[in-house]
Amino acid sequence: MIELALFGAGRIGQVHAANAAAHPSIRLKYIVDPIESADRDRLAAATGAAIVDAETVFSDSSLPGVVIASSTDTHSDILLRCAQTGKAVFCEKPISLDFATVRHVVERVETSGIPCLLGFQRRYDTNFRFVRDRIASGDAGKLEHVVMHTRDPSPPPRAYVERSGGMFRDQAIHDFDMARYLLGEEIATVYAVGNSLIDPDIAAAGDIDTAMITLTSRSGKFVQMVNCRRAPFGYDQRLEALCSREVLYVENRPQRGVTIADAGGFHSSPPMNYFIERFADAYRAEMFAFVDLIETARAPLAGIRDGLEAQRLAEAAIASMTRRMPIDVDANWQP
Amino acid sequence: MIELALFGAGRIGQVHAANAAAHPSIRLKYIVDPIESADRDRLAAATGAAIVDAETVFSDSSLPGVVIASSTDTHSDILLRCAQTGKAVFCEKPISLDFATVRHVVERVETSGIPCLLGFQRRYDTNFRFVRDRIASGDAGKLEHVVMHTRDPSPPPRAYVERSGGMFRDQAIHDFDMARYLLGEEIATVYAVGNSLIDPDIAAAGDIDTAMITLTSRSGKFVQMVNCRRAPFGYDQRLEALCSREVLYVENRPQRGVTIADAGGFHSSPPMNYFIERFADAYRAEMFAFVDLIETARAPLAGIRDGLEAQRLAEAAIASMTRRMPIDVDANWQP
Amino acid sequence: MIELALFGAGRIGQVHAANAAAHPSIRLKYIVDPIESADRDRLAAATGAAIVDAETVFSDSSLPGVVIASSTDTHSDILLRCAQTGKAVFCEKPISLDFATVRHVVERVETSGIPCLLGFQRRYDTNFRFVRDRIASGDAGKLEHVVMHTRDPSPPPRAYVERSGGMFRDQAIHDFDMARYLLGEEIATVYAVGNSLIDPDIAAAGDIDTAMITLTSRSGKFVQMVNCRRAPFGYDQRLEALCSREVLYVENRPQRGVTIADAGGFHSSPPMNYFIERFADAYRAEMFAFVDLIETARAPLAGIRDGLEAQRLAEAAIASMTRRMPIDVDANWQP
Amino acid sequence: MIELALFGAGRIGQVHAANAAAHPSIRLKYIVDPIESADRDRLAAATGAAIVDAETVFSDSSLPGVVIASSTDTHSDILLRCAQTGKAVFCEKPISLDFATVRHVVERVETSGIPCLLGFQRRYDTNFRFVRDRIASGDAGKLEHVVMHTRDPSPPPRAYVERSGGMFRDQAIHDFDMARYLLGEEIATVYAVGNSLIDPDIAAAGDIDTAMITLTSRSGKFVQMVNCRRAPFGYDQRLEALCSREVLYVENRPQRGVTIADAGGFHSSPPMNYFIERFADAYRAEMFAFVDLIETARAPLAGIRDGLEAQRLAEAAIASMTRRMPIDVDANWQP
Repeated sequence: MIELALFGAGRIGQVHAANAAAHPSIRLKYIVDPIESADRDRLAAATGAAIVDAETVFSDSSLPGVVIASSTDTHSDILLRCAQTGKAVFCEKPISLDFATVRHVVERVETSGIPCLLGFQRRYDTNFRFVRDRIASGDAGKLEHVVMHTRDPSPPPRAYVERSGGMFRDQAIHDFDMARYLLGEEIATVYAVGNSLIDPDIAAAGDIDTAMITLTSRSGKFVQMVNCRRAPFGYDQRLEALCSREVLYVENRPQRGVTIADAGGFHSSPPMNYFIERFADAYRAEMFAFVDLIETARAPLAGIRDGLEAQRLAEAAIASMTRRMPIDVDANWQP
Repeated sequence: MIELALFGAGRIGQVHAANAAAHPSIRLKYIVDPIESADRDRLAAATGAAIVDAETVFSDSSLPGVVIASSTDTHSDILLRCAQTGKAVFCEKPISLDFATVRHVVERVETSGIPCLLGFQRRYDTNFRFVRDRIASGDAGKLEHVVMHTRDPSPPPRAYVERSGGMFRDQAIHDFDMARYLLGEEIATVYAVGNSLIDPDIAAAGDIDTAMITLTSRSGKFVQMVNCRRAPFGYDQRLEALCSREVLYVENRPQRGVTIADAGGFHSSPPMNYFIERFADAYRAEMFAFVDLIETARAPLAGIRDGLEAQRLAEAAIASMTRRMPIDVDANWQP
Repeated sequence: MIELALFGAGRIGQVHAANAAAHPSIRLKYIVDPIESADRDRLAAATGAAIVDAETVFSDSSLPGVVIASSTDTHSDILLRCAQTGKAVFCEKPISLDFATVRHVVERVETSGIPCLLGFQRRYDTNFRFVRDRIASGDAGKLEHVVMHTRDPSPPPRAYVERSGGMFRDQAIHDFDMARYLLGEEIATVYAVGNSLIDPDIAAAGDIDTAMITLTSRSGKFVQMVNCRRAPFGYDQRLEALCSREVLYVENRPQRGVTIADAGGFHSSPPMNYFIERFADAYRAEMFAFVDLIETARAPLAGIRDGLEAQRLAEAAIASMTRRMPIDVDANWQP
Repeated sequence: MIELALFGAGRIGQVHAANAAAHPSIRLKYIVDPIESADRDRLAAATGAAIVDAETVFSDSSLPGVVIASSTDTHSDILLRCAQTGKAVFCEKPISLDFATVRHVVERVETSGIPCLLGFQRRYDTNFRFVRDRIASGDAGKLEHVVMHTRDPSPPPRAYVERSGGMFRDQAIHDFDMARYLLGEEIATVYAVGNSLIDPDIAAAGDIDTAMITLTSRSGKFVQMVNCRRAPFGYDQRLEALCSREVLYVENRPQRGVTIADAGGFHSSPPMNYFIERFADAYRAEMFAFVDLIETARAPLAGIRDGLEAQRLAEAAIASMTRRMPIDVDANWQP
C-alpha cells in the first residue's frame, strides 16, 4: 500500500483524491489545505486522511509520495521540499509562473533524483496516445505538420485570469506540450499573435482571449495552434496530424449518442464539457502512472523537464506577441 | 444519332428529356402528351421535338426508341404498341396497377424481343450499385440480411394517392426491386402490416402511410423494410446490408456540406429533397444505359421482368396485410 | 448504510459489486456463490463481504436487500425467498426461462409487496432515457413507429446458447422491453421469423442467430426489430423512433474519438464492445436506483411486471416463428 | 443571346465552355487557342464556335464578352485588350504573376469601366456562400476568427510548379480571397512560414509545399491558414469560422454516400477529387453570374480589385517567409 499526501483539496485535488481512493494500492494519508471548506472536510472523512500542515508531511519519513494540486504559487516550494526530503511527486502544471523559478526548481528536482510526474494529462488520454503511438510506430508515415485547436467553453472569471499567468502559460501550455510530444523533437521558432476579441474583462485584466501560434521545429516541421477562451458549443479540444500516408484526427467526444432530426436537419449533442469530464480517464491513468513510477520507476509520459520546455514555449509566445516578431528558441533561451 | 419519342411531359418526363438533350447521341424527335401545358410547349421548343399523337410515333418506322413517362394507366398500351412495332422502350414503373395486365404485357414484350429498360432508377445510383457490386464480388462476405428505409418527405396529395395503386405498388415497389437486386435470388415469403398513422386523407383514400414488411428469400435470408409517407427531416432513403465480413450502408446525401455548432450542439443540413434531386445522376445513367441498350444490346440493370417480379411482391404484401398472414410466393403466385 | 447480499460472483455480479462498493450508502455484506473461484474470493476480500450460503442471507432479518446475478435457473427460487422474507430485490433478467414459472413468481412478488427492480439496464442508459423522455414530453410530436437493431459482436459459445432459452428470451427480450418502454402501451400482435444463417453451432443447438420481428401496438403503432448474433464490427445496439416532428436516433458509441484518413477514405473506430462497457453508466445508475427504491420507495424504471410482459412477447415471437403466423397477444396470452 | 469568345481550350476552358453551352442565353462564337489539340477541335465542333486569333475577337465589335482561361502569362494582355475594346470579361485568376503588372492592369480595367468577373469560384460555392451570408446576416453573432485548410491531393508536376508563381500565388490566393470575403474588411498583417517537406522536386523548383499563414485584419481579427500540396486522402478544402454565437464549418464533400463497417471500424469514402469536381456547381454559377453581369450589370461576387487584393496578400506572405518577419500591409503596400 502506497501512502500519499495531497496538497490542495480544490476541484482538481478532488479528482486526484477520488482516483487515489479507487486505486487498489493507494491510501491517502494526509490532506494539506489551509483553507477550511466543506469539500476539504468531506474528502478527509471519506478517505480517512488527516488534515495536516506541510511540515507534518515532510517530516513523515515513511511517506513515499506527494500529489500537488494546490494553487500555482505554492508549487515551487512544495517541489523543492519534495526534492529535499526525497519524496516522489505528482505535480499539476505549471511549476511556477516565473520562468527563472521554473528553471531553478527543475534543476533541483533533477539533481535530487526524485521521481516526478508532471500533470500534462492530455498525454494520458487514450485518443492522443493512440495518435502519438501511431506516429511513433511509423504506420502513418512521416509527420509533416500538426494543427491544434483548444477553445474553452467560456471565458474564466477575471479573478482567475489575473492569477493565471495569462492564456499562453495557463491554457496553451498544454498544446505546447502536445506539440513536443507528437513531434518528438524541440521547437526552434515561435510566432504568436493574440487579442482580446471576446471578453472585455480579459482585456481589462491585461490578458488575451484569442491567439494564433505557429511553431517551427528544429527539423523544419510546422505546428499551428488556435487558442481561445470561448467556443459557442462548449469545450473544443481537437488535433490533426498530417503525415505522409495518413491524417490522424483527435476529435471532440460528444456528450450523448443521440441525434435528433427535424425539418432543420440533423442535430447532435455538444461535446463533453469540460476538461474534468473530458479527461476523466486520463486523470485516472495519471494516478496509475504515478503508482508505477513509485513502485517500478517506470518513466511517466510527462516529467519535470517537459514542464520546463512547454513553459519556455509559452514565454517565447509572449515575447513574440509583445515584440511582434518570431522568436528563435534553443535550450538556453529565456525571456 | 438516336431519335426518340417521349410520352409524357410532366415532372419525370422533363427529367428524361433534359438527360436526352444533354446526351451527345440522342435527338428527341417527338413529344406525345395530350395535355396542353406551358411545360410541354417549352420542352418542345427547347429540344426541337414535334408535339404529335401516338399514331405518328408508331407509324414512323425509322424511329428506334420510346421513353414512357406518361401516367401509369397508359403504360401498358404503349408497351404493347412498342412490342408490335419493334421499338426499344425505356418505361417508368409500374407497368400497370393491374397484375393480370402486367403479366400479359410482360409476356408480349418478352415474346416480341424488343429491348426494354424499366425505370428502377435506384439500381443506377452509384451508391446502391457500389453496395450491390461489393456484395456480388464476395469482398463483403456472404450476405445475410438487408434492412431498408424509405420515407417520403411528406404525404402526397389525396388525388395522387387515389390513382397510385397504394403505397406498396407506388413506393415500396422500388424496395422490392432493390431486395431482389441485392439478394440475387427470388423472395419466398412476404409479411406486411400497414396502417394510416400520419395522414387522415390517406386513410380516407383507402390507403396506408406506414408499413413494415419482412421478406424471406428462397435460401432463407431476410429483408426488413420500413415504408412511410413522411420523415420529419425530408426524404429518407437508406439501406444496410449485413454480410459476414462487412456491413454496407447506403446513406442519405446531405443538401449542404456545412455544419453549424452552437450551444445546442452540432447541426447539419437535411438530405437532398426529393427523389428528382437525389437520383439526378441515376436518371442520367439510365439514359446512357438506354442508348447502350439500343446501340449495343447491352442488357440494362433492370428489365421488364424485374417490373413483374417487384410488383408480384407488392401484390403479395397487400394480400399479407389484408389477410393478416405471411404469403408464400413462387413464380406462379398471383393475387 | 444499506447492507446487501449478492447472489452470483460472475461477470455481471462483479459489475454490480463494484458499483455497490463505489456507492456511498451501500455495504456488501454477503456473497452467495457455491462455485469456488479466484474472482469470487477476490471480490469478498476487496469488499469485506462474507461468503455464505443462501440460508444465512434469508435468516438475517436485518438485511434489507438482495442483488440476484446468479445463473438464470436460480432466479425464481431466490425471488420467492425474497418475497417470503420481505427483502428488496434487484434481479437480473430473465425471471425464468419457463413462462408459467415467471407468472407464478411475479404474482408472489407482487402479492408480497417487496420492492423489486428488474435489470433491464438499457432503460437506465442516458441516451435511451433521453429519447424516451423526449417522446414522453411531447416535444418530438406523436410517436409513430420504432426501428431497433441489436446485433452481438459474435455468436456466443454453444454451451451458452443451450442454456440461454434461445435468442428471443435471451437477447431480444431487452428490445421487447424497450418497445414497451418507448411506446408507453402494450403490444397487440407479434410476428417473427428466424433462421440460423451465421453459426452452424447455433443451429445444432436448436437456436437461431438472425431474427426479424414486427410488433403492432394496441393503438396500431409499429415496432420493427432486427436481432442478430453477429455484427462484423462489434456490438450494434441502435434505435430510431419516428415521431411526427422529429426522428430520434440512439447511436452506437465509438471506442475512440480518433479518425484516420488515408487514400481509402476516412476510418473511425468500432463501437464500444461489449454491453459491459457500453452500459457501464447504466449499471451504475441501476444501483443508485436500487438504493432509491429501498430508501425512498421511488419506483424503478423497470419492475417485476416488466419482466413478465417482455417475456410474454418473447414467447409470442417463438410461437409466431414456429407456427409461421402472427400471434395476437393480450394480458392473458400464454404460450 | 449573348455571344462569347473563349481564350484557352485547356482543362478549365473546357469547363467554362460546357457551362456556356448549357446556359440558355449564351452562344460560344470564338475559341482562341494557338495550340492545336484534339480537345480544342472537339470543343469547336460541339459548340459550333470558330477557332480564330485574338485580333478577330477584338475587332468583332458586336461581341459583348470574353472568357479568359488561357495560360497565366496571357491574362494581362487580354485584359488590357478587353479594356481597350470595351468587352465584358470573365477572367481566371491570377491577373499576372508580376504584381506591378497586376496593379497596372487593374487600374486600366477600372478606368475603362468594363464589367469584370474574376474567377474566385469558391465564392460561388453554395456552402461557402451559405457561411458568408450567415455571417453577414448577423445570425451567427460577431465573427472572431477563421481557420482554413487547403491541401491538394498530391504535388503538381515540376513543370507546373515552375510556371505557377509559387504556392502562395497559385494555391493560397484562393484562401486569401476567402479571408477577405468572410471578414468583410482588409488584412493589416501577414505572417507566413513555408517549407518543402513533401516533394523534393518542389524544393528543386525553388517552391514550398507546406505553409502556415496568420493574418490579422484591420480590426484585429485573425485568420489562420494551412496550405499544403498533399493530403493523403485527396483534396482537403475546409473552413471554420468562429463567431460569438456559432461556429460555422464548411466541410469536404464525400465522393460516395456509402459506409463500410468491418472489424476495423467504419470506413467512408474520400472527398470529391479534385477542384473541377468539387466546384462543378460553383463554375456553373460563375457563368450565370457572368450573364447577369453583362445583361443587368449586377456586380459579381468577385471583381478585378479582389484579384489585386488577394495577390497583395500572396506577395506579402512571400515577403514574410523570406524576411522571417510579419509584414504590415496597407492599400499601397507592394513587394
